[in-house]
Amino acid sequence: MSESNWSVPETEVVQRVHDRLDADGTDVLATIVDVEGNAYRRPGAKMLLDHDGAGVGSITAGCIEDDLLAAAETVRETGRPARVTYDLMEDDTDDVWGLGVGCNGVIDILLEPLDETYRPAVEAFADGRDIAVLTVVSDDDATGWGRLGDRAYYHPGEGRVRRPDGSAADRWPAEALAGPAADLAERGSADVVSVAGPDGEISEVFVDGIAAPADLVVFGTGHDVGPVVELAERNDFRVTVVGFRGAVDLAERFPEAHRTVTTSPGALDDALDVDERTHAVVMTHNFVDDRIAVETLLRSPAPYVGLMGPRERFEEMREAFDDEGTAFDESDLASLYTPVGLDLGGGSPYQIAHSIVGEVLAVSNDRSPRHLREREEHIHDRVDVDGSPSA
Amino acid sequence: MSESNWSVPETEVVQRVHDRLDADGTDVLATIVDVEGNAYRRPGAKMLLDHDGAGVGSITAGCIEDDLLAAAETVRETGRPARVTYDLMEDDTDDVWGLGVGCNGVIDILLEPLDETYRPAVEAFADGRDIAVLTVVSDDDATGWGRLGDRAYYHPGEGRVRRPDGSAADRWPAEALAGPAADLAERGSADVVSVAGPDGEISEVFVDGIAAPADLVVFGTGHDVGPVVELAERNDFRVTVVGFRGAVDLAERFPEAHRTVTTSPGALDDALDVDERTHAVVMTHNFVDDRIAVETLLRSPAPYVGLMGPRERFEEMREAFDDEGTAFDESDLASLYTPVGLDLGGGSPYQIAHSIVGEVLAVSNDRSPRHLREREEHIHDRVDVDGSPSA
Repeated sequence: MSESNWSVPETEVVQRVHDRLDADGTDVLATIVDVEGNAYRRPGAKMLLDHDGAGVGSITAGCIEDDLLAAAETVRETGRPARVTYDLMEDDTDDVWGLGVGCNGVIDILLEPLDETYRPAVEAFADGRDIAVLTVVSDDDATGWGRLGDRAYYHPGEGRVRRPDGSAADRWPAEALAGPAADLAERGSADVVSVAGPDGEISEVFVDGIAAPADLVVFGTGHDVGPVVELAERNDFRVTVVGFRGAVDLAERFPEAHRTVTTSPGALDDALDVDERTHAVVMTHNFVDDRIAVETLLRSPAPYVGLMGPRERFEEMREAFDDEGTAFDESDLASLYTPVGLDLGGGSPYQIAHSIVGEVLAVSNDRSPRHLREREEHIHDRVDVDGSPSA
Repeated sequence: MSESNWSVPETEVVQRVHDRLDADGTDVLATIVDVEGNAYRRPGAKMLLDHDGAGVGSITAGCIEDDLLAAAETVRETGRPARVTYDLMEDDTDDVWGLGVGCNGVIDILLEPLDETYRPAVEAFADGRDIAVLTVVSDDDATGWGRLGDRAYYHPGEGRVRRPDGSAADRWPAEALAGPAADLAERGSADVVSVAGPDGEISEVFVDGIAAPADLVVFGTGHDVGPVVELAERNDFRVTVVGFRGAVDLAERFPEAHRTVTTSPGALDDALDVDERTHAVVMTHNFVDDRIAVETLLRSPAPYVGLMGPRERFEEMREAFDDEGTAFDESDLASLYTPVGLDLGGGSPYQIAHSIVGEVLAVSNDRSPRHLREREEHIHDRVDVDGSPSA
């Protein structure tokens, strides 16, 4: 198995799935449904396996991918989905192995021929919309409305469950699924939800929340911007580079950016759609441009506004704001991070970018960027949705 | 000017300088000597400008690089070094600009034809030795022992100042320079040191401490290792990947690694030279292999030992250590970081790698990885060497 694409940004996995939708089921999509123990990846992690045995994405650190290839071949031949469980604790002769990572847990995987039923998921991702993929993972059709691999979608924007072709999913237990699906879609988490039928029979539905990628808008076009764009894209941010005053060739200069925009500071509001998912880093190296960008952003719902430069520089900006009658109080400034970045001590362009992107990642995940050894909670947020069978 | 190489890891700049030593002075090396205000880069930042106008490295975020190209052309034509000062505050009509970053400070730059006199610097870097480049930056030869661009080296290993050809630098004020040079070489910082001659006349020497790159040894060959190697190299770590039990093709699988080693857990001590600059991340996903690596590392002077997996996993290891009579007390465990990484909340291979490399960077720079906005000290460590004129 070629492995050069195993460890890629998640956005690349989704993009590849999108590209391969037309391969008519010769590709097999593997998705982690459930995990016991401390696995390297969480439920929802995906890997696409093509008929040549090349994989994109990874669901462990490499422990079962070869076995998975054989299982995928069966799915390809039969054209039917399968749920496979790898109990990596079984081989252990010593109970300490049970505390391993990646190669030592129980991993439950859904394998399915990639086909048109997956299109709504990748199109929502491309459009920047949250979505939850609902897939029956019970082996038998106990409740009469779906068997293994049957699929519907929860669309948070409209609060509805629909079949992949857009039609109403009349027989699906939409009421029982909507709550967990809305929550998981927003968080980009996944979980199995058990749904009871009228006679108490249980179907299991894998609710795979696929959150729209977080946006990062970088104001600036200096040579320090390139590493920020590169590292942010690696971390699955959708990056927009904004240049002022006729900045040219931005798309060529920042090839990894999702989008580049050239505008004037005064036209920012029109050029950009800033919402509560927009993270912004301001690094134009021009005081007036920075000030206008920061002022616009602090008035927006953007949860993160990183400003390059020393603290005193923002204090000067603030005086200018005050003179102009646009004062900000302390609560407005909660989203402002200046000097931008985490205190990692590096001084090279990549080190500075690493510290900036690390900070954006922490804020976007609502984490406090201390050492993990100092964190008292679990590393991964535990999914806690209402998965109890509905009556 | 082509800019694709402006923002590259520092190791690539040094490597390029090494490669171009034989270009016979057609390349010009620019080094920041001094900075007033809050510049993007610090003294010692370098950029190599070739005769086609292509640059490698950056000394600002792009504010003066075009002007620098013209100045470099003059240096190339005359074959003589020059010290140029860019006072980017001069253009300002508003004093708030003085608080800018990068484009708003006073930047003092040494331009010199790149030639053989620079070889000891790049060879020390390649060999993993600290060194300080000592360059006269006074315009006139006031003290009679050196004029602008004249060069010697301080070699910390032997505590001596030598000319670039290895001969004794008899006329150089070695005694006055050794202290600051030793300190700056270790820290990889740079500063101007003023040295007084017998009659009180002053020469200025730019002491450019070039610290050997920090080592990162990654134990493991899973698919999660690639992003760690890639991001660590971007951050100027010299990465060694260690595989156990006949792991093959490591050099091909991890092309960005400086070195790959296949060994057995029992032969670790022989295969690796672990010293107080060695940072290590243990992620073999095999409990026994991890345990042997961690045990070896905790007995070494390595300042950072990151172990992937939950805290409980190490507690199990510790019990195994105890059973074997190799107990570690709390002070031995100060270098152990488990779970490995910063708490940034990401779960993809790149996000996990970003959190790991960010932690290594912070520890190697002796920083606490909080938000910079919460740091009370200056962002950059201030250089404080004994630069007062010696009597």
